[in-house]
Amino acid sequence: MKYKLKCITCEKIYEPKEDFYFCPECGERFGTLEVIYDYDNLNIKKEDFSKEKGMFQFEKLLPVSSHTRFDEYIGATPLIEFNDLLGINKVLIKYDGTNFSASYKDRASIIAINKAIEEKKDTIFCASTGNAATSLAMLSASTNLKTYIFVPNTIPIGKRLQLEVSGATILAIEGNYDQAFDLSMEIGLKKGWYLRNSAINPYLLEGKKTGAFEVIVQNNYEDIDYLFVSVGDGTVVSALYKGFYEFKKLKLISKIPKIIGVQSEGLDAVKRTFEQGAPYAPVDIEGTTIADSIAVGMPRDVIKACKYVEASNGKFITVSDIKIKEAIFELGKSTGIFAEPAGAITYGGFKKMVELNEINKNDKVCLVITGNGLKDPDVLKNDIENGFIEIDEVRRRFK
Amino acid sequence: MKYKLKCITCEKIYEPKEDFYFCPECGERFGTLEVIYDYDNLNIKKEDFSKEKGMFQFEKLLPVSSHTRFDEYIGATPLIEFNDLLGINKVLIKYDGTNFSASYKDRASIIAINKAIEEKKDTIFCASTGNAATSLAMLSASTNLKTYIFVPNTIPIGKRLQLEVSGATILAIEGNYDQAFDLSMEIGLKKGWYLRNSAINPYLLEGKKTGAFEVIVQNNYEDIDYLFVSVGDGTVVSALYKGFYEFKKLKLISKIPKIIGVQSEGLDAVKRTFEQGAPYAPVDIEGTTIADSIAVGMPRDVIKACKYVEASNGKFITVSDIKIKEAIFELGKSTGIFAEPAGAITYGGFKKMVELNEINKNDKVCLVITGNGLKDPDVLKNDIENGFIEIDEVRRRFK
Repeated sequence: MKYKLKCITCEKIYEPKEDFYFCPECGERFGTLEVIYDYDNLNIKKEDFSKEKGMFQFEKLLPVSSHTRFDEYIGATPLIEFNDLLGINKVLIKYDGTNFSASYKDRASIIAINKAIEEKKDTIFCASTGNAATSLAMLSASTNLKTYIFVPNTIPIGKRLQLEVSGATILAIEGNYDQAFDLSMEIGLKKGWYLRNSAINPYLLEGKKTGAFEVIVQNNYEDIDYLFVSVGDGTVVSALYKGFYEFKKLKLISKIPKIIGVQSEGLDAVKRTFEQGAPYAPVDIEGTTIADSIAVGMPRDVIKACKYVEASNGKFITVSDIKIKEAIFELGKSTGIFAEPAGAITYGGFKKMVELNEINKNDKVCLVITGNGLKDPDVLKNDIENGFIEIDEVRRRFK
Repeated sequence: MKYKLKCITCEKIYEPKEDFYFCPECGERFGTLEVIYDYDNLNIKKEDFSKEKGMFQFEKLLPVSSHTRFDEYIGATPLIEFNDLLGINKVLIKYDGTNFSASYKDRASIIAINKAIEEKKDTIFCASTGNAATSLAMLSASTNLKTYIFVPNTIPIGKRLQLEVSGATILAIEGNYDQAFDLSMEIGLKKGWYLRNSAINPYLLEGKKTGAFEVIVQNNYEDIDYLFVSVGDGTVVSALYKGFYEFKKLKLISKIPKIIGVQSEGLDAVKRTFEQGAPYAPVDIEGTTIADSIAVGMPRDVIKACKYVEASNGKFITVSDIKIKEAIFELGKSTGIFAEPAGAITYGGFKKMVELNEINKNDKVCLVITGNGLKDPDVLKNDIENGFIEIDEVRRRFK
């Protein structure tokens, strides 16, 4: 195998094998595994990569060998530069709302599907706040895999329709994401289905790290000082750190940005865990937020998220639901990007740190926007300011 | 100038100039202009193009010289191959739901914005069934252009929110698209704003033709027998023909596919015009359809659409609203693609011709899906089959 698995807590090294997802000695929560490669012998050069190619151009750093028809179309999302956003001279926005299912989660789902096919599974499952589920359901629809989706019944209409249309079996439970997660693990592992839960299956983070690789390549390997991203379970923030870490280890970049994980004020379990300091012990909470994609009270990848953000000299911050809504409109007006709440919160966190003078105008900043606003129209339906207008009234206005 | 303008009806050639959008002798409806290049001296080779690059790689065949930050991120949408779709061995789906604003219209809006900046306009406007408007509003948000949007007040919630969030001035009139169009022309031209109405401004079709160029390059310049696309005003279908026509003229391909324009049964003005035969005279009608993006009773690009589809040996067909809804689900289940009604109708038209044995299993088929299903969730909200389920019920089911 070109890679091995290392426990995030006890650091024991394992050989990959089927149905092996976490360190049996440290358990599901503390024993999340990292995929490690033989970095010294990978022979990776800047010239291997292009700004336009999708995530599978990084295949030497991905734990897969099979391929599906969608592989070449995942990733290669825009990195758009703004030169005076809130007074900061260089702000790069990585916008994954243009991915196939309109979220960052495609990067993980496509890995899961390839692994499931490699392991000759006939069924795949996931628990999700919504985006991981829709991504898996849509990307697996044209494969031979049967797909089971465990979601809270409160998922937004856009995501629900993506699931319905894809033909996956939807188990929309009367309960929250944390309950859907536990139920999925109970049933999926018993049945021997392939596990597409990013916080447990270490291979999925490998897909998610490609967002960092793309930022680096699209930004011409130049330094970035701060990278902001929203945090629910903790996997995307971990993955982004790992992407920068690996490219630094490979001497392709000289610096890892400070990673700023942005959580909702109402559900900030990762921040609370982080602020209690190492050795990290999960602080689980109950709460609510309009940012459904990060509505997580029992974050499953919390240990890794805290260790990685600490290693980057970053931190976790929170944004309130009211500020999330403001962020959606402000981001839209200044950039044209329409983000779902869990995408716009990243901008809200950036704005908060600018207002606190924690970011200088010459700092190079990257905001990762993980999902498209079209996924959750209902969250804004009471915020439509403009009604409609009679034709003659338009004529009068522009006489 | 590297290009000239030719009237579709009288064939008179004009030099491009500011605020000049149609042949003054033939008028707005019959005098739509084509952009023509000095094809013999363009020196275009297959090696100039890549499968991954966006629409501006075709710049030698685009009537622009300025650039915005979004240019490189428009286009390069997936072309996904399916090898047994409704029994047909090779079906390619060009899916533009992953464009920046989630529709094909970005290809035209980005041209309009570049042209408006070239012509030093401070304001840009468009009338739209929805997608052109959202595309323009989102792509212009970060420019210095002021943006006026004329739309019917019935536009779907997703599109409405894209507009609200972008900060454009929205004139959602009490009326239909045809009325919004006339009103926009009356006011916009009087005010001297830049015109982003694809059916009138000839440069916009140039952006839209890049979808055909991408299909050709992504399909390795191999023959395609049939290309299906939905039709409202007639501009996209015209643009796709022109893309194939130009690449054939440049000897990069040997064959233009038969272009099949798919209209809604309730609003089939282009089909009616076409079937009356040449010389074409617009047959305007009134009607309704759930496919809001093609809800057009007075198609403005009808003459060009009819001439081009005739030149391809293609035709126009219709699909009913009921079949459009069926098509959304069938397309989703078999491919994972979630299309808006005006996207899924393309699949519905393909299915209709397969069932009539008008397509053979070895014919090479391309379906152009122009918009993302997330744009219009309400059209399906009564079709959600699965409700929700109690946790214990899930446990019982998978005992």
